[in-house]
Amino acid sequence: MKRTKIIEILKSDVPGDKFFFKGWVRTRRDSKTFSFIEINDGSCLKNIQVVADDTLEHYEDIKKLTTGSAIAVTGTLIESRGKGQKWEIQAEKAEIISIAPDTYPLQKKRHTDEFLRTIAHLRPRTNKYGAAFRIRSELSYAVHKFFRDRGFRYLHSPIITGSDCEGAGEMFRVTTLAPDSPSKKDGKPDYAQDFFGKETNLTVSGQLSAEMFALSLGDVYTFGPTFRAENSNTRRHAAEFWMVEPEMAFCDLTENMEIAEAFIKYLSSYVMEECPEDLELFAKFVDKTLMRTLENIASSEYVRLPYKAAVKILNRSGKKFDYPVDFGKDLQSEHERHLTEKHFKKPVIVYDYPKDIKPFYMRVNDDGETVAAMDVLVPGVGEIIGGSQREERLDVLKSRMNEMGLSQENYWWYLDTRKFGTVPHSGFGLGFERLIMLVTGIRNIRDVIPFPRTPNSIEF
Amino acid sequence: MKRTKIIEILKSDVPGDKFFFKGWVRTRRDSKTFSFIEINDGSCLKNIQVVADDTLEHYEDIKKLTTGSAIAVTGTLIESRGKGQKWEIQAEKAEIISIAPDTYPLQKKRHTDEFLRTIAHLRPRTNKYGAAFRIRSELSYAVHKFFRDRGFRYLHSPIITGSDCEGAGEMFRVTTLAPDSPSKKDGKPDYAQDFFGKETNLTVSGQLSAEMFALSLGDVYTFGPTFRAENSNTRRHAAEFWMVEPEMAFCDLTENMEIAEAFIKYLSSYVMEECPEDLELFAKFVDKTLMRTLENIASSEYVRLPYKAAVKILNRSGKKFDYPVDFGKDLQSEHERHLTEKHFKKPVIVYDYPKDIKPFYMRVNDDGETVAAMDVLVPGVGEIIGGSQREERLDVLKSRMNEMGLSQENYWWYLDTRKFGTVPHSGFGLGFERLIMLVTGIRNIRDVIPFPRTPNSIEF
Repeated sequence: MKRTKIIEILKSDVPGDKFFFKGWVRTRRDSKTFSFIEINDGSCLKNIQVVADDTLEHYEDIKKLTTGSAIAVTGTLIESRGKGQKWEIQAEKAEIISIAPDTYPLQKKRHTDEFLRTIAHLRPRTNKYGAAFRIRSELSYAVHKFFRDRGFRYLHSPIITGSDCEGAGEMFRVTTLAPDSPSKKDGKPDYAQDFFGKETNLTVSGQLSAEMFALSLGDVYTFGPTFRAENSNTRRHAAEFWMVEPEMAFCDLTENMEIAEAFIKYLSSYVMEECPEDLELFAKFVDKTLMRTLENIASSEYVRLPYKAAVKILNRSGKKFDYPVDFGKDLQSEHERHLTEKHFKKPVIVYDYPKDIKPFYMRVNDDGETVAAMDVLVPGVGEIIGGSQREERLDVLKSRMNEMGLSQENYWWYLDTRKFGTVPHSGFGLGFERLIMLVTGIRNIRDVIPFPRTPNSIEF
Repeated sequence: MKRTKIIEILKSDVPGDKFFFKGWVRTRRDSKTFSFIEINDGSCLKNIQVVADDTLEHYEDIKKLTTGSAIAVTGTLIESRGKGQKWEIQAEKAEIISIAPDTYPLQKKRHTDEFLRTIAHLRPRTNKYGAAFRIRSELSYAVHKFFRDRGFRYLHSPIITGSDCEGAGEMFRVTTLAPDSPSKKDGKPDYAQDFFGKETNLTVSGQLSAEMFALSLGDVYTFGPTFRAENSNTRRHAAEFWMVEPEMAFCDLTENMEIAEAFIKYLSSYVMEECPEDLELFAKFVDKTLMRTLENIASSEYVRLPYKAAVKILNRSGKKFDYPVDFGKDLQSEHERHLTEKHFKKPVIVYDYPKDIKPFYMRVNDDGETVAAMDVLVPGVGEIIGGSQREERLDVLKSRMNEMGLSQENYWWYLDTRKFGTVPHSGFGLGFERLIMLVTGIRNIRDVIPFPRTPNSIEF
């Protein structure tokens, strides 16, 4: 008989059907003449309850089943006499695959997130983390589906990069030089002897590669790992995380904002439609306001707010911020949250930021002091997307690079696209972990990544 | 008027429709009173032909349009009087976005793959590379769709790893230690001062992580970048490439082979159905046997062949191989190609390999000398998939690790899954670039990766 996954069995509405399934024991309760066994196979949040009568072969062994043990069951679907579930399985045959010892760390009790991080290899077996990682999987698919349905092409941008600066933070070095005595030249490591013949790092963004492809294929996106070697232990930072970066040819800032809004709306609607059961767990136990937040994000019309107007609103708010607000200063998390959570009470797209706080590739506006940048702020997490129209004018781009001390020689290929058929184009980046935190209410980035990497932490 | 992509315009079958579109000039031919302009916007292989009469405003400028220039056109769809295309656009308005200088490297002539590698930022603008990267994008989606439709969950396995050995080749070191004078302790680099507090590398496989998740969520897969620091300059090796690695709980070698066969069949059918136009380019200009190969792979019943039987066939073939064949030796590419291309003339799955040539995690068969490993060989590229049933018995696994000198301490988490509810499970790996080479007939891995990384080569 072919095995059926528990998610499929629970979708059934025909009592009397016979099933063969396998899974892990969550709990066992014995009465005089039978045992209830809750079994989960990871395919969904719910367990299936098995009724094992003492008339079963090897019933004595069944009474030894511990939490975490593995079992194969053949039985008939019947309507449950207990409450809490519609169906249960009357076992006709139960075969023990393996017995977990009592030292199994996931005994039925509440575990702290901190403890579960120390057993990241086992935590997806819990309800909460199983749900989180099923949602992560579904939303990954939603990312691909959103873009493919709109004619975007997916691009695998490189992870190891020779660019000394992609404009966003500290980098990890990648090397095959001997760690204790690297070949040296003039007292410095001789990168000519390194694998790539020069110093290389882990990428901080796929954007520049994506621009090359957008200016060839039209609409493209990347979705891959990116890295920051920042020694900061906060609940929002990890050294390794996944970014979604669409890039669109023939697209200005206004259209860029429209796509960003449509994208966030799509993702929040998608998770509500496709993951109702897993989502319910978070709405019940992690963040009581979760569904309201998601509904707001999925259905509000997002505010369009120039940076200058945002500064005015913040200065007139009467609120005392830790960081003062003034033209030319970047908005802090506290400002972003005030705008989206307190002032507008819905998502806000702030745009036209001061030139001096933004990277070289953003398009300079006609006022000469702002660039065509935009950030999407949402209740719950603040900034979820950052993007811009890119500077397509060769002369302006070059003078921006000079101002910022960037070598034109290293970026000859980037400049090439402004020489040969340059066109207006735009793009943005979404931190995928921040999205998962938004839709689950999980507050620590370590808890939405299968095996998180943070300073001094690389177990597993 | 809203812009329409050229792929959509070409799908039209209503002459008289009016369109606004943008793109890059591929060629321009002038006659006395009008010009033909071929325009491509990257959305598909085909150009759209624009007829620009000399009655157009700024017609003199249009006659200056060079290859690579960008343009926006408003016009009416009419049936083409020329051959080679069904539709063309009678321009009513044409606005030049930018003029490419004559130094634009992609003039209308044949360029070698070697030359195009030196301008990897521009090569997706050519027919061949545009098609290759559209196919790469479509097949990425197909990977996700195949697994999602079957209830698999997608897992982002970590890129930076602290495991000193994942069992597959040379690794890149990842570090933030000062390259010229790393902190030292006892004459060696003091990794306690490194970002993660220990030596770390780029992953060579997501399998071990995927096993952890399979033993929690059931059926899972990874799809992400992997790395080899091997200093080999061949047409089949890159330092950075993408791997697909499914892992299934409650799955033995037989079922593993079934899923692998279904997967390869799905992908080859998918590309024929979803990318007929781009595929045709490769069938015409790159590999005349391509369609026959793909049909064979999509519809043959794959041979199941024990390694021992494979050795016999090879020894009896009468063919002189560069490497002798004998039990205990790994099959070389020449052997694999002989089996699949000459002997069976269809895909072959070789299984039950000698234990001594395979990694520690593969399940030892009852004969004690082979393991439950399998390789899928296909005509055209040879090995495309390698996989195995994993060793789920704690004692056997430990003794295999001892034999191979692996530290049990470092793998405590891996061993945990064999202590707590261990179950039979299996998985395999597909090199994604090898798949793209298979379906396009492209023979060099550098030409199926957007920006390839190989020894001494990391431009862009």
